[in-house]
Amino acid sequence: MTANPIATRLFVDPALGAGQTVGLDHQQAHYLRSVLRLSTGAELALFNGRDGEWRARIDALGKGWASLAVLDQRREQQPEPDLWLLFAPIKRARLDFMVEKACELGVSRLLPVFTQNTDVSRVNCERLRANCREAAEQCERLSVPEVAEPIRLRALLETWPVERHLLLGAESGEAPPVAEQVAQAREQAGGRAAGAANTAPWAVLVGPEGGFTEAELDALNKLPFVTAAGLGPRVLRADTAAIALIACWQAWLGDGDARPPFRS
Amino acid sequence: MTANPIATRLFVDPALGAGQTVGLDHQQAHYLRSVLRLSTGAELALFNGRDGEWRARIDALGKGWASLAVLDQRREQQPEPDLWLLFAPIKRARLDFMVEKACELGVSRLLPVFTQNTDVSRVNCERLRANCREAAEQCERLSVPEVAEPIRLRALLETWPVERHLLLGAESGEAPPVAEQVAQAREQAGGRAAGAANTAPWAVLVGPEGGFTEAELDALNKLPFVTAAGLGPRVLRADTAAIALIACWQAWLGDGDARPPFRS
Repeated sequence: MTANPIATRLFVDPALGAGQTVGLDHQQAHYLRSVLRLSTGAELALFNGRDGEWRARIDALGKGWASLAVLDQRREQQPEPDLWLLFAPIKRARLDFMVEKACELGVSRLLPVFTQNTDVSRVNCERLRANCREAAEQCERLSVPEVAEPIRLRALLETWPVERHLLLGAESGEAPPVAEQVAQAREQAGGRAAGAANTAPWAVLVGPEGGFTEAELDALNKLPFVTAAGLGPRVLRADTAAIALIACWQAWLGDGDARPPFRS
Repeated sequence: MTANPIATRLFVDPALGAGQTVGLDHQQAHYLRSVLRLSTGAELALFNGRDGEWRARIDALGKGWASLAVLDQRREQQPEPDLWLLFAPIKRARLDFMVEKACELGVSRLLPVFTQNTDVSRVNCERLRANCREAAEQCERLSVPEVAEPIRLRALLETWPVERHLLLGAESGEAPPVAEQVAQAREQAGGRAAGAANTAPWAVLVGPEGGFTEAELDALNKLPFVTAAGLGPRVLRADTAAIALIACWQAWLGDGDARPPFRS
């Protein structure tokens, strides 16, 4: 294993192992050649969400194609926190930003949900997937979060896997503070952060800019797997609430105790 | 006091009191008339960071000017958490977003600091002030964070008020997890969130995209008021780290126990 960070990381699909050859798609090859201006012999890191992270070398690089030789493994694949983000779609710039932040903060799956007050009616999931890939490459995680197709909130809850806890960002009603809620969950999980290897499955749910309707909130609060949490006296935008909840969840219930690799 | 939320809130400079008349600047008048399409008789809320929040009515509205009658007080001025955000300037879109989020999450003062690896050499403080005002109006807080002029990190630390704790986002080195650090500080503050009225003064510091230099980190870690904190195994962008640290600080040491006003 190499000890230094490698600036360029790419997510690829093929299996990774010593001695293998990996071809890049048009976009990634263009990125290496025309954006980063790398040439034959340059080293980078590859990951595919299954085989850990591998050092690779550019063997050949053309206009829109590249061939890489996989050298050795830098990191083994690690278990990662099992945290979904459920969000009502918001406007594009905010959505892009929220997705990037959620990915950096270690969310495992993104689910766009339509609620009654959701203004935005379409979601470009391919765009979100590209954002996720880029953010994952940048933040050194070993996986790219899955992006699910949009679903109505009611339909989602009807088929909800009941063992998955749902942390609900609630700006109205009697929701206890998030600090209390995640500390209590942590205590129930054994008094400390469980670590990525054995975190219980959770999800974070934030409403649309117009908030949940009273009926939606009532229905949510009746569900046995829902934990409503408050985030202080200010009225947060949906994207802000999502990022704040994920940050608190990771710190107390996720892999907040771990440290970045390849740092002194 | 009125019980319902008022959609439009404006930050103004003049003193606020029942029966007073407040004139708006060109931009605010234009916003009411041409963006929101309000007319005479419409109600909105005013705050100035000193006198709480007041209900007001548009008495006259022209092209680029407006006159408002201040009616009655909706909320008294409240003490707010004393949390500064120290950040190395980043590119414009990310900076705008980070400032908006910091404001929503209740930061009291923003200080751009130049570190050795800071790429960006100029900061448009007026732009940041405008962003802060807009975010404060939107999130229902009763103040607008102050934006300080940029300063070199070394100069800032030389004149640092030692009673103000500094929470340092550290991706390298031996920094304990943020959960541990804020829980410990909360215990020292009496075992619970102190509440906005009597929070100790704190600041959050995040480095530039290139990170702190080793010398900078060494110097920071030697300072008695610095608490270094880790944020998990992923390498976060500066804006993500700032938002995550602020969210955790508010939840454990700030006003995370409070609830938004005017909500059922």
